[in-house]
Amino acid sequence: MSYLPIQHVLKTLPVGTEVTIKGWVRTKRESKNAVFIALNDGSTIHTIQAVAETGQLPEDTLKLITTGACLAVTGLLVESQGAGQAVEVKIASIQIYGPADPDKYPLQPKRHSLEFLREIAHLRPRTNTFSAVLRIRHALAFAVHKYFNDNGFYYLNTPIITASDAEGAGEMFRVTTLDAIKPPLNEEGKVDYSQDFFGRETNLTVSGQLEGELGAMALGKIYTFGPTFRAENSNTTRHLAEFWMIEPEMAFFELEDNMNLAEDFVKTVIRYALQNCADDLAFLDNRLKEEEKTKKKEEQSDMGLLDKLQFVISNEFVRLTYTDAIDILVNSKPAKKGQFQYEVSWGVDLQSEHERYLVEKHFKKPVILTNYPREIKAFYMKQDEESNAAPGPTVRAMDVLFPGIGEIIGGSQREDNYDKLVARMQEVGIEPEALWWYLDTRRFGSAPHAGFGLGFERLVLFVTGMGNIRDVIPFPRAPKTAEF
Amino acid sequence: MSYLPIQHVLKTLPVGTEVTIKGWVRTKRESKNAVFIALNDGSTIHTIQAVAETGQLPEDTLKLITTGACLAVTGLLVESQGAGQAVEVKIASIQIYGPADPDKYPLQPKRHSLEFLREIAHLRPRTNTFSAVLRIRHALAFAVHKYFNDNGFYYLNTPIITASDAEGAGEMFRVTTLDAIKPPLNEEGKVDYSQDFFGRETNLTVSGQLEGELGAMALGKIYTFGPTFRAENSNTTRHLAEFWMIEPEMAFFELEDNMNLAEDFVKTVIRYALQNCADDLAFLDNRLKEEEKTKKKEEQSDMGLLDKLQFVISNEFVRLTYTDAIDILVNSKPAKKGQFQYEVSWGVDLQSEHERYLVEKHFKKPVILTNYPREIKAFYMKQDEESNAAPGPTVRAMDVLFPGIGEIIGGSQREDNYDKLVARMQEVGIEPEALWWYLDTRRFGSAPHAGFGLGFERLVLFVTGMGNIRDVIPFPRAPKTAEF
Repeated sequence: MSYLPIQHVLKTLPVGTEVTIKGWVRTKRESKNAVFIALNDGSTIHTIQAVAETGQLPEDTLKLITTGACLAVTGLLVESQGAGQAVEVKIASIQIYGPADPDKYPLQPKRHSLEFLREIAHLRPRTNTFSAVLRIRHALAFAVHKYFNDNGFYYLNTPIITASDAEGAGEMFRVTTLDAIKPPLNEEGKVDYSQDFFGRETNLTVSGQLEGELGAMALGKIYTFGPTFRAENSNTTRHLAEFWMIEPEMAFFELEDNMNLAEDFVKTVIRYALQNCADDLAFLDNRLKEEEKTKKKEEQSDMGLLDKLQFVISNEFVRLTYTDAIDILVNSKPAKKGQFQYEVSWGVDLQSEHERYLVEKHFKKPVILTNYPREIKAFYMKQDEESNAAPGPTVRAMDVLFPGIGEIIGGSQREDNYDKLVARMQEVGIEPEALWWYLDTRRFGSAPHAGFGLGFERLVLFVTGMGNIRDVIPFPRAPKTAEF
Repeated sequence: MSYLPIQHVLKTLPVGTEVTIKGWVRTKRESKNAVFIALNDGSTIHTIQAVAETGQLPEDTLKLITTGACLAVTGLLVESQGAGQAVEVKIASIQIYGPADPDKYPLQPKRHSLEFLREIAHLRPRTNTFSAVLRIRHALAFAVHKYFNDNGFYYLNTPIITASDAEGAGEMFRVTTLDAIKPPLNEEGKVDYSQDFFGRETNLTVSGQLEGELGAMALGKIYTFGPTFRAENSNTTRHLAEFWMIEPEMAFFELEDNMNLAEDFVKTVIRYALQNCADDLAFLDNRLKEEEKTKKKEEQSDMGLLDKLQFVISNEFVRLTYTDAIDILVNSKPAKKGQFQYEVSWGVDLQSEHERYLVEKHFKKPVILTNYPREIKAFYMKQDEESNAAPGPTVRAMDVLFPGIGEIIGGSQREDNYDKLVARMQEVGIEPEALWWYLDTRRFGSAPHAGFGLGFERLVLFVTGMGNIRDVIPFPRAPKTAEF
């Protein structure tokens, strides 16, 4: 290929090589004797410095070399005189591909706010922070595929458009080709979806799990990794209307196997990022440290970004039941002092503050909670035998809790008993007929099986240390936000 | 993990090992002295045989061991007496996880039609054909990610829900949360999309390319691999309403680099499947040979499935211009004998019959056609300098043509000149304002760049030799089809 990435030049080429490098100008600096141009092509966080003698470049060329302009520079790779780089390019010739008018180009060599950069999401990958985030996002995605491939899982593309609305995981987007103003109506005055593209009402999927289970009950171990959608009108730093989910499902896995897999999976993927994104992570670690310094002492975090990642991969996750966790929380200092915003007692859904207390204060380790109350979990989770330890019925759920973020993985062993599953669906108001195909896996060759879900952006948020989920996906989708 | 895949047992465990295998019964056969149970768990196309002596298993257990039932079998791995397998399991104990009532279970040990299996897409991965197709689909997807990762590309998740409707690649699905019967109207009596979830009209993406270009103009080399959608009411064996696309975009790549990449990419991915899916491909090769035998002699294909894959990876792709290809086609036997269904002359879009003639009859090699007439290609393709060789204006497009399938990859160098791009948009009726963000990459630091698109299901279709695209995706979406 005719294009030589700067990462390759910096890492592998010996001094004395004649090179042509191509990239975008980050900065231009002129001294008495020379012009220094820092070029970046996105292959790495680092720039390469190209140097010309003063007077060497024609004035009208020099004028076009401004931040954001795209150049090809040919010259000799030489040892750098300056600090911070081993090599630089002694410019022999320059070709200007495309200038960037400094009066109009929005990305100038200064610190831009993340809010401003969100408005120019089409250009923000040209900044250090976003290019680092996107390269790490790539590495994490690849690590996910590699992990499952190495471990005998098959990638299953579950449908994006679905007629199944029984999952109850959240509000859905309608997908339609009917006339927007005057849709055809049936005799009852309702929309006649039999005339819609798919002959029925369809929505964007909120989860590939139910179809994933169909795959697992045939192929053994499968995983999904694709977009999912929630039409929830919540403008927070933790929610997107469109996000990517990873959902493995495994035949013959019980709760214990599921926990082992989740822990090994998330550790392996984070270890991969540490090994393959050292420069980008060092940059973000430093960025976060600078940000922390601007905070009040008591709001500063004890752990830096790299510390936090090491914390996860080097600790064995603590495993305990929801019931035991409630005991700990009820007897905790913050509970006794009334410092929790939400009160805690057996049966409530844990809030992020409770989860973080367990991870960050009590155990100082990542935590897996299991055997949650049935009433706060989904219908498809396997019901536990009655036990004296819990004050009410529980299911074989597991949530993996991380520092800073709370729940990062949610999963369970699935109910494999047809009668129990149907009874539970009826209790929570789901028509068994609507999920006839799901129930068929329990009618024909049912087996113990389990799985979990991981929101990919949550993982990227954790690994990059960014504060807003809209900054870890290239083009975020949220209420009133669908530009680009 | 507690679950030992059958693939692992067959490939690596020595005779004499005590094993517990889990899987679904494919067949049960009883001889005078023994019962033979063939078990499959989806990890491989092969079954493992479990053997019990006659009378060893209680009658009521034996009755439940029918096709589709799920079992765990514990016993000693021994050399097999039968033909076709090296080892089998001498049953010590059996646990039945879930029976499959033979009067109700739709998958019986006989040949089912693909049409019938499409109606039970939730169960068809339990058949040999579909499990082979899905394992190959997985291997191809992994090979795609591996190829791009190995070659310095970054995976970019372009948006699924998009407000941009200017791409013109096809009919779109509307995404909305407005009231289905009485949407809010504005003063002009049109739907007031400012009240919709995203504050504007939104659709499902038809291509990630335009956003992909934004990524390439920052990160250098990117690729997308995600779902795309077409709301076209065409019920064919080649079209889906929801399918997965792979779209690499590369800064600093020109047409020649783009061709080199496309050829290397598709060969590498197919080679990966040949190396990693030998058993599944052998099964499908054989399946296709059996199918061919049922056809009339003159309709039988010269090449088997494996032959066709070898044909692609072992031949250098022929590269020629559209203009030269038209010359060849106009002077071809079928054109002179009037055997083409569609007439061919400079300026027409080539039909599959023309593409296949070039590949299968004329060159007997995969072909890359370049420099197509501007009028039949998309607005974003880079315009060629005028040339005497072509009778009209051309663009730096390239299509890769394969045997049996015709076009498998379509791409181009992209127009990087702002003025030419705007002029072309206006000519074809696209508002430049609607794509302001796309044009910004040509305003600020523009550079030569190129990319292409590959419909993933087309690739899976080619590699598996299946005849209908609905049979290479787990849950196909097509007009009036959105079950599961």
